[in-house]
Formats: sequence, structure tokens, C-alpha cells
Amino acid sequence: MKVLVVHAHPEAKSFASAMKSTAVDVLTAAGHTVEVTDLYALNFNPVANAADFGVPQNGDYLVYALEQRHGLETGTLSADILNEVEKVRRCDLLLLTFPIYWFSMPAILKGWIDRVFVSGAFYGGRRIYDRGGMVGQKALVCATLGSRQSMVCDGGIHGDLAMMLRPLLQGTLGYVGFDVLDPFFAYHVPYIQHQERLEILDAWRASLGVIERRPAMQMPTLADFDETLSRRLPSEALQNA
Amino acid sequence: MKVLVVHAHPEAKSFASAMKSTAVDVLTAAGHTVEVTDLYALNFNPVANAADFGVPQNGDYLVYALEQRHGLETGTLSADILNEVEKVRRCDLLLLTFPIYWFSMPAILKGWIDRVFVSGAFYGGRRIYDRGGMVGQKALVCATLGSRQSMVCDGGIHGDLAMMLRPLLQGTLGYVGFDVLDPFFAYHVPYIQHQERLEILDAWRASLGVIERRPAMQMPTLADFDETLSRRLPSEALQNA
Repeated sequence: MKVLVVHAHPEAKSFASAMKSTAVDVLTAAGHTVEVTDLYALNFNPVANAADFGVPQNGDYLVYALEQRHGLETGTLSADILNEVEKVRRCDLLLLTFPIYWFSMPAILKGWIDRVFVSGAFYGGRRIYDRGGMVGQKALVCATLGSRQSMVCDGGIHGDLAMMLRPLLQGTLGYVGFDVLDPFFAYHVPYIQHQERLEILDAWRASLGVIERRPAMQMPTLADFDETLSRRLPSEALQNA
Repeated sequence: MKVLVVHAHPEAKSFASAMKSTAVDVLTAAGHTVEVTDLYALNFNPVANAADFGVPQNGDYLVYALEQRHGLETGTLSADILNEVEKVRRCDLLLLTFPIYWFSMPAILKGWIDRVFVSGAFYGGRRIYDRGGMVGQKALVCATLGSRQSMVCDGGIHGDLAMMLRPLLQGTLGYVGFDVLDPFFAYHVPYIQHQERLEILDAWRASLGVIERRPAMQMPTLADFDETLSRRLPSEALQNA
């Protein structure tokens, strides 16, 4: 496989960074080709902005998604964006490694998505989910967090973690067509002992060894929805399946 | 009331920006004191970084939350952060106005939270939800989006929008103790006619006129959880209520 690792942690010696490095090592040793976008190391600009478009279609009124389409068609998107778009397009597996900040991604990674997941290439109109631009490619989230598992499960104080990350897992990765593999979480990381961290790294290595058989999450199917993306009656959905 | 409006849209003539300006006008006319943090206008840096700490506790290994505490205690946090911390601390109502990007905030607003909601002042240990740092203050989200309401409701293709925004509504605003008012959403904005947009602005004005009676969302109660934040048995919870 071609693997793109997108990493976002401000500390190169962090546990999340160790999980990233472990992934690079294990996947490379298994014969995969691995590219890395280390957002902090690149000093990546996460702010969607008019300056992203060299020759805007409408310089007086910025509609970001429309300019993304125009910039992609005319090849005038900012080079840092185009470079990342090409990396994502050519990968078989997109691996995101990051610490959970506020039950979501650090801003630098959120902005990588805001700027790189361009309208036209990644999605557009009804080209979403199983008709999205990234159909046939896989995505995996590997995230560290401070919470105990008991705090982020169904019935826990914050609720289920995969549900909290639904804007990313479904609303972003699933939305553009990726097969979204079951995420890998490292819990309670700042508070556990060295030995426990080594055990997590072992579990992560084992997961990476069988990555091609890792199950994917269920996503909506476009055949279940009509032209306005309203849910079809069950009989209609059957005809469109 | 003292109101802090935090706004994040790259186009000053956008509908989201009109909603922000409408809020400033209506709330000011009603006698409230309104401050605005316009993140794009400020060119706010959203990237949590070692440079946020003038005199770090540990210059060799960055633990962001620990440095936030230290920086706050010693007054050595970056000035742009401290300035925003003070604005949030002194407001009675925090109003966030933004376009929904990927079922979440634009990165510039996510990064405002990553950097400004500092450990120690906003939360810490079991000082979360109804024991969080912002207890007694209110927060309201006002967001624009492209989806029709039928696409982001329970049973819709993307699921319920308030559920999608749970990392912000519960996991961030509720977590630090705000009374989180029912959010205001402007749907399908890029595709509707001028008249429909005027109607949304009218509804928004009306909402702002009765803001002090707007209902709040339900959040977890710390009394229901024990020292490790595991859920208590119902009998224990009763004793701790």
C-alpha cells in the first residue's frame, strides 16, 4: 500500500509522536511505501483564506468552496494545498495521528482538512459517502487522550468517544468516501506509567500488522437518499440499491 | 450583560458576518456591553505551540496543559492568549458566530479554543461541567451551513446537527461550565434566495431579543460521578446531589 501519515503534535518527543514513528517503521518494514506530512514540522498554515487562491474567480466576495473548485480546475490553488491534495489522492491508506484537544483535532490538523479536502476532488453535490472522491481508499485515526476509557464510553461522563469524533470519522473521512477503519485510541496517556505506554505501543504495532484486515465503520449509503438527500421510503431504497 | 462575540469567517460580507453584525447591533441597542473578537480581522494564530509560553516550566518537553497552568500562574502566557482569557472571564454571554466547516468550527476558531481555554482557569481535574471555571456564564453558538435541515436531523443522511457539534457544545462549552444555550442554525445558506436570508436575520433578531430566556442544553452533573469520574450507583448519586 501507499500510506500517507498526517501527524499533528507540538512536541516531537510526545507519545503521539512515538505512535506516528512506530507506524512509519512498522508499515515500512512490512513493504508499504510511507509518506509523512508532519504539520508542526512543516509549520503548516491551517487558516482557510483568500490568499489560498492565486487567481480567484471572484476577488470581491470569497466563497471558499467555489474558489477551491476553480483553483483546482485552473491549477492556481496555493502550492502547499496542491501538494497535500496530490499526496492524499495517491495514497491507499490515510493515517491521522494526533492528540485529542477538546474532543476533536488540534487546529493545525483541522485546518489541513479545511484547506486540503477541496470541493471538486474530494466531494461535490451528491458525490459523498459511497460516491465520494476517495472511494476505494482507507483512512485510520490514531489518537491519544487524557481521559480514562470509562469517561468516554457509552454511559461515561463525556459519552462515547467515537460518537464525539463523528464530525471527523463520518462527517469528514466517511463523507469524502474513505473506508473509515475502526479508530485506535490511547487513553489516559499523561497519567499512566512507562510500562503501560509500552503495552499500548505493542498493541498498536500488532494492529498495524493486520491493518489490511481491520474492520471499517458503517457509513450512510447514497442509494437510501433521494435527489435532495432526503431519506427514501424503504421500497424506493431497495430499487436504488 | 457583558457579551463577547467571537467571530470566524474569511469574508467580511458573508451571511455569517451579517449575523455577527446583527448580534452586535441588537445586543448593543438592548443595553448590553458588547466586545468582538474577529479572528480573521485579528489574524489570530490558532496553532498551540511552545512559543505560547514565555518562561516555560519545562523547555525540553512540552506538555501543553501543564504549561498553560504555569503560564497563567506566572503571568507569562503569550499576550494574545491572556487578552482573550480576560475577555472570556469577564463576559456574561459568549457568542460564537461561524460557518460550519466539516461539521465543526473553522480551524482559526478551533485554535482560539485550543489556546485560550487554558487549564487552571477554565477547567482542571474534576472542575468540569457544573463545577467548571465558567459556571454562571452563558454561551451561544450561531452557525451557518450549506446542508438543508432535512440532511442534518435525526434520520437525515448526516444525522442530528447538535449531536455532530457535541464536541463543541458539550465537550468544550459545557465542559468548562457554561450554560450552553440552544444553538441557532442558518441552514442551506449558499443556496437560498435573498428574501429567505432576510427572514433568517429576522428570526435571529427575535431570538436575540429574548436571549435571557433562551433555554439551555442539559449537561452532565458531577454529583453523578465518583472521584475517578465513573458513574455512581443511583443511591450514591442521590447522596451527593
